[in-house]
Amino acid sequence: MSGTQENLRSHCPVNYGLEAFGDRWALLILRDIIFRGKRKYGDFLQSEEGVSTNILASRLTRLVEEGILERAEDENDGRKSIYKLTPKGLDLIPVIFEIILWSAKYDKHSQAKLIPRLVQQIKSNNRELSGDIIRRVANGEAILKTYLD
Amino acid sequence: MSGTQENLRSHCPVNYGLEAFGDRWALLILRDIIFRGKRKYGDFLQSEEGVSTNILASRLTRLVEEGILERAEDENDGRKSIYKLTPKGLDLIPVIFEIILWSAKYDKHSQAKLIPRLVQQIKSNNRELSGDIIRRVANGEAILKTYLD
Repeated sequence: MSGTQENLRSHCPVNYGLEAFGDRWALLILRDIIFRGKRKYGDFLQSEEGVSTNILASRLTRLVEEGILERAEDENDGRKSIYKLTPKGLDLIPVIFEIILWSAKYDKHSQAKLIPRLVQQIKSNNRELSGDIIRRVANGEAILKTYLD
Repeated sequence: MSGTQENLRSHCPVNYGLEAFGDRWALLILRDIIFRGKRKYGDFLQSEEGVSTNILASRLTRLVEEGILERAEDENDGRKSIYKLTPKGLDLIPVIFEIILWSAKYDKHSQAKLIPRLVQQIKSNNRELSGDIIRRVANGEAILKTYLD
């Protein structure tokens, strides 16, 4: 997470992705938005992995700078921000889905066991599934609850 | 890259993946093996992103501990090691391909422009393509040269 468009270590397409979002905490923020519908700093802070306040703040700023998130004023409290995925951020959904598929295969204690239907759909056709999920997340839906059987 | 199977912050399938390989330098090592057929410490050290010696050594050790890479003795020089992907490591190829697809779309200077055929194949059917590429990489092939038109 050290580069910007103008200051990349290389334009190798693997490196570009990793400089933009290739940080554990950054991708966990995206997970929280996609699966749990989180939008606020305080909500991200409560995730079970225990992100620290300074790391969370720096990653949110960075994701906005990268054009992956956009920040808006909270309608109910103008001192607070809400975050949502841009189209560039929504297009990371297929990447996150491939990570889920890999973890479901190799983590014997994986919580992916709770969402077998999603895992199966990723395996069958990630591209088609992602198109559908992108539309739902763009509409503010939290998709996790629809996959917990 | 701070967890192990026994010491994970959560078994969320996104988090599991990120704790295992979710580090920029770790994924660049995998890229170098898959695309460029690199196998040795000295070869990884020369990549254009400029990894430092201590980060490279720590990431190689970590990827071996995670079961993503295996280390063997170099037949030509017993003091040196060669690294190759395990089946668990090879199964990260579809993840890396999705990152490439995303970067090809959003990085206007992307080197992905040099490999349009690969980008198109990822888009059409990542799963099928990955099955083929996994077999080729397992056989020690460096795939980049076959995609540079």
